[in-house]
Amino acid sequence: MNFSSDNAWGAHPAVMHLLAEVNDQPMMAYGADPVTARAEAALRELLEAPEAVIRFVATGTAANALALAQLSPPYGRIYCHEDAHIETSECAAPEFISGGAKLVTLPGADGKIAPDMLAEAIRRGKGGGLIAGRNAAVSIANATEWGTVYSVDEVAELARITRQAGLALHMDGARFANAAASLGVTAAELSWRAGVDALCFGGTKNGAMAAEAVVFFDPAQTEGFDYRRKQTGHVFSKQRFLAAQMLALATDGLWLRLARQANEKAQRLADGILAAGGALLVPVQSNAVFATLPSEAHRRARDAGAIYHLWPDKSAEGLDPVPLRLVAAWNTPDEDIQRFCATILG
Amino acid sequence: MNFSSDNAWGAHPAVMHLLAEVNDQPMMAYGADPVTARAEAALRELLEAPEAVIRFVATGTAANALALAQLSPPYGRIYCHEDAHIETSECAAPEFISGGAKLVTLPGADGKIAPDMLAEAIRRGKGGGLIAGRNAAVSIANATEWGTVYSVDEVAELARITRQAGLALHMDGARFANAAASLGVTAAELSWRAGVDALCFGGTKNGAMAAEAVVFFDPAQTEGFDYRRKQTGHVFSKQRFLAAQMLALATDGLWLRLARQANEKAQRLADGILAAGGALLVPVQSNAVFATLPSEAHRRARDAGAIYHLWPDKSAEGLDPVPLRLVAAWNTPDEDIQRFCATILG
Amino acid sequence: MNFSSDNAWGAHPAVMHLLAEVNDQPMMAYGADPVTARAEAALRELLEAPEAVIRFVATGTAANALALAQLSPPYGRIYCHEDAHIETSECAAPEFISGGAKLVTLPGADGKIAPDMLAEAIRRGKGGGLIAGRNAAVSIANATEWGTVYSVDEVAELARITRQAGLALHMDGARFANAAASLGVTAAELSWRAGVDALCFGGTKNGAMAAEAVVFFDPAQTEGFDYRRKQTGHVFSKQRFLAAQMLALATDGLWLRLARQANEKAQRLADGILAAGGALLVPVQSNAVFATLPSEAHRRARDAGAIYHLWPDKSAEGLDPVPLRLVAAWNTPDEDIQRFCATILG
Amino acid sequence: MNFSSDNAWGAHPAVMHLLAEVNDQPMMAYGADPVTARAEAALRELLEAPEAVIRFVATGTAANALALAQLSPPYGRIYCHEDAHIETSECAAPEFISGGAKLVTLPGADGKIAPDMLAEAIRRGKGGGLIAGRNAAVSIANATEWGTVYSVDEVAELARITRQAGLALHMDGARFANAAASLGVTAAELSWRAGVDALCFGGTKNGAMAAEAVVFFDPAQTEGFDYRRKQTGHVFSKQRFLAAQMLALATDGLWLRLARQANEKAQRLADGILAAGGALLVPVQSNAVFATLPSEAHRRARDAGAIYHLWPDKSAEGLDPVPLRLVAAWNTPDEDIQRFCATILG
Repeated sequence: MNFSSDNAWGAHPAVMHLLAEVNDQPMMAYGADPVTARAEAALRELLEAPEAVIRFVATGTAANALALAQLSPPYGRIYCHEDAHIETSECAAPEFISGGAKLVTLPGADGKIAPDMLAEAIRRGKGGGLIAGRNAAVSIANATEWGTVYSVDEVAELARITRQAGLALHMDGARFANAAASLGVTAAELSWRAGVDALCFGGTKNGAMAAEAVVFFDPAQTEGFDYRRKQTGHVFSKQRFLAAQMLALATDGLWLRLARQANEKAQRLADGILAAGGALLVPVQSNAVFATLPSEAHRRARDAGAIYHLWPDKSAEGLDPVPLRLVAAWNTPDEDIQRFCATILG
Repeated sequence: MNFSSDNAWGAHPAVMHLLAEVNDQPMMAYGADPVTARAEAALRELLEAPEAVIRFVATGTAANALALAQLSPPYGRIYCHEDAHIETSECAAPEFISGGAKLVTLPGADGKIAPDMLAEAIRRGKGGGLIAGRNAAVSIANATEWGTVYSVDEVAELARITRQAGLALHMDGARFANAAASLGVTAAELSWRAGVDALCFGGTKNGAMAAEAVVFFDPAQTEGFDYRRKQTGHVFSKQRFLAAQMLALATDGLWLRLARQANEKAQRLADGILAAGGALLVPVQSNAVFATLPSEAHRRARDAGAIYHLWPDKSAEGLDPVPLRLVAAWNTPDEDIQRFCATILG
Repeated sequence: MNFSSDNAWGAHPAVMHLLAEVNDQPMMAYGADPVTARAEAALRELLEAPEAVIRFVATGTAANALALAQLSPPYGRIYCHEDAHIETSECAAPEFISGGAKLVTLPGADGKIAPDMLAEAIRRGKGGGLIAGRNAAVSIANATEWGTVYSVDEVAELARITRQAGLALHMDGARFANAAASLGVTAAELSWRAGVDALCFGGTKNGAMAAEAVVFFDPAQTEGFDYRRKQTGHVFSKQRFLAAQMLALATDGLWLRLARQANEKAQRLADGILAAGGALLVPVQSNAVFATLPSEAHRRARDAGAIYHLWPDKSAEGLDPVPLRLVAAWNTPDEDIQRFCATILG
Repeated sequence: MNFSSDNAWGAHPAVMHLLAEVNDQPMMAYGADPVTARAEAALRELLEAPEAVIRFVATGTAANALALAQLSPPYGRIYCHEDAHIETSECAAPEFISGGAKLVTLPGADGKIAPDMLAEAIRRGKGGGLIAGRNAAVSIANATEWGTVYSVDEVAELARITRQAGLALHMDGARFANAAASLGVTAAELSWRAGVDALCFGGTKNGAMAAEAVVFFDPAQTEGFDYRRKQTGHVFSKQRFLAAQMLALATDGLWLRLARQANEKAQRLADGILAAGGALLVPVQSNAVFATLPSEAHRRARDAGAIYHLWPDKSAEGLDPVPLRLVAAWNTPDEDIQRFCATILG
């Protein structure tokens, strides 16, 4: 009963199969191989973006920080939610990789930035002039760190404000598939058609071992990006093994099926929590559940071996009800979910 | 009637005199000159800190960013007020010079950090573990960006929390003299005796052309600092001209007299504003006045040629009353103050 | 007949097998898994270094740059050969990741640094004082970029000079296994026993998909290293997949067997080149061959489909004889070698 | 008899006078003052470059590193002489301020880069592709670190190669005035007309306290430069004091007169050295003399109190003849020169 993270679960058989297949023959290093070309093409098709520039890296932190470094100069201001992964959970990688850019954080319900708050922050940043640094980018995560999801309209509204001010819009899509599955929209609708400039399309949490794609929809924004990737140590010599993972996910809609599975499993976990007298901290819209559980139920779950994080950290131990976070993966066993729900029901 | 900034006003005659004197003879470059040695000694005496390591730079941003880079690794977390100069007005210089450190901002009344809020933020930062970055330093400004002043006890309380958590305490003292003058305490009491590790002792706003001292009270914290200063272009070849400015200020208590003068002038500006039906936004404790003024009075002042900033920026134009900021310098003419007060009184 | 690079060839079946095994069950993310612990232990045993701190990353550039950033401050001087991979082939990653350190390059026959030249360069660097930056580290590669190998005594002599001057010794071991196999010495003899402080132990070119280990033999030198790794995006959430690759290589001496195979294959390529009237540019001591080939033989090889790089780049096309580089991998087919040798023999 | 450096000598009376004048009245901070405007205009006129963008900083290291950071991305390659000040004497400031750019050094007689060597290095850099980093800029110093001078034609030839390859040409002009005076050419002829993109026009060594101008001849190359300057702590709040120094030097050809004086004094020092049986290491073309002196003459000079540096450092003590460096300033007393020459003559 491991609900600690989608990172706790492994890769899909189709991914493993393609890795083995790729392993069988020699191919040119550093991306000059046919698998990389096929993976890029598959992702462009998936995104209905024939001009998009696609690059593969192994971690979400690398993907986000490199994309932001591309969109912001060292003296840039990058607006994001105060609970954004790039702010709370990447050890200042965006600051480092960009060479000094400042994350300007905004509060907002359910982990989402409110349009008027964004507009006002951008206005104030601009008013600050030289000493404030230069407005450069806005970063949103979809799904968010709270597992909530921006609708296409919500993305479009933030994109409108962003573009009007001359900034670029970055989307941290570590769980982009979960967001798209949740909304029932296409990848294109949720990204470039809504105004996203750069998308980090996550694979790791969704059936890969370690594979993320950085997608720039406008090639004009990619000047020097490959050098940046190399200079940070994120160019793989055997890049075909990164590409193969993404290719497997992009084939036959696997990425979306897996995300849908994970979302449904999270929904069942949420239902079980509600049935056990718990309460949701935010709506469950993707594969994460933030909820409180009566401490008695929590104790039973722990005793039965269930693994999950208290929220925001273990200092929550002892509270009643106990705030916690559960994350479902594409392959979280249904038996585990049933057993967990039964256990907390008591 | 220029109340725009203490930066608008020039250097004290004693500073100019010493610069001329130093100019008269050749001296070894890069700080190997007797003026630098005398200036360092004078500042150590002023601070009653015989072991302190003192280095001179020309700008407050350089002083703060270099000091913080010394106290924090690139992956460090630096806690500061959300209105701190290092956060709002240095174009991410601390992020850049430190190589990526994150400023974690805290709200707080009157531009001051509240002890319990600091303690909680430090606790959460530590709880975040690897992904949050490592707790490194706390930075406070005294006087603050709002012209308010931390008392010795308030500094000591923040220092206690900081030290207990194993962090270092930085004080942005661009207006340190104004704070000391306001409180009627010694430089030692307000700095190392209260627990400050690194002090940026400002000269520029207080009678110098361009001179700031970075002071480390514990020599063990200065490892490599001179290289850092050189690598950022902040080592002057003719360093004696920086040192001479500081030496003049440190001689015969000039630094304190000038700050006292500026504080008194600000007080008179505040009195005039209150008399004219204005209101203070925060208490006037140093040489800055944040206040509102009836728009009618504001209009008269502008018509009479008074120069000052609307607050937080010119978007405040048109409000009634009008929020504004006035800053007094050591040599703001008393006639200007009288005329301003009379003008707004109508 | 792909002799372009050892990066052109895939992973060993034992690696693939262990990856599949690890994939079967959920494990805690970010290295808190048993595979990581086992891989670290296996590498410590392989190196006979029970105190060593081991960390896994996916690329050699990341490994080198992170190790050097750990051994050098931003204002440090890092001495290396002018043809070192860190100088010529990592897009200034060491400069970037370290935050500005300077690579000071030294000439030297066969891609190797000469002890007296190193001693003199260190002396001059120290003499330069503040403006030169601070002497920080020496970096050597074993095997070198030229495929040559430092003997244990040669490493020890450079280490002695390095240590005497208070610097740290880094070894780029992208092909460390090839060097150890070539010399017939143990990993310990060729690293910490000879005076190496930090070793980048390569897996990618030697039977892994993408896995390198950064090894610090003195835990005191690892302060903050994990933050550094995270801040550059090099901490894998599913780290067990990195660790598994290394674990497979470290098991039952696989790393050494594979390197020995590759070295032998290179030797056979060299023999064929000599038989065909070619000449070696440097001795063949590991798995790379730098040689010239009569242009006629080169043409035949190309026509037959052989893939390899001209040296130093394609501007060599048209020369007679043609300088070129061939690299053998652990699984370069013997038939390919035979066919290549026969083809160039004419 | 201080011949240690032009940095050992003070500012010209005209500079001191203008500083005092500027000090008399309040002016807006951060460059929004009339002195800055006048100084920029004066320098544009001096350079016959009405479109040039001019910015003032206080140190040569800041000027060079900021200019290079503007011309090169973090992953850029900057070609320079192996004895260039930016390589040997700025503590890796270019690497730091640019965020990681690599200085690629070239040998060359008399401290000067040879055109064919530059062309070949640029070609190889380009051939290196992604892993080498991207060709970005060429930096030459005029006068060079060896006091030699590139002629207008020599600059133009290097500029042609630079531009043809799509790179930008930076000129470290810490002693630009000395070079122009030596050649008898205009500032325009020696800079933009010869193909220089960015010129660091030195004032500090030539009659100022601490003032350098960064000049971009093409405004299109200055995007974001002010932010960069602010983010590194190089924007002065009382910028008028920097500008005033430059304004004084730019007025009535003072810059050129002072440089001519210094050059002539150096020539006399050289003549004296030759008369005393010494020899020049390189031709004396500006205000520095690199020479050897019989050790007996050296001993007499030292005994008489003459101050100068042994070359390249004090390890030269004990050699016979002794290699040394003497630098003349605009105001090195003629008596000192006569006395030195008489002393070494014996």
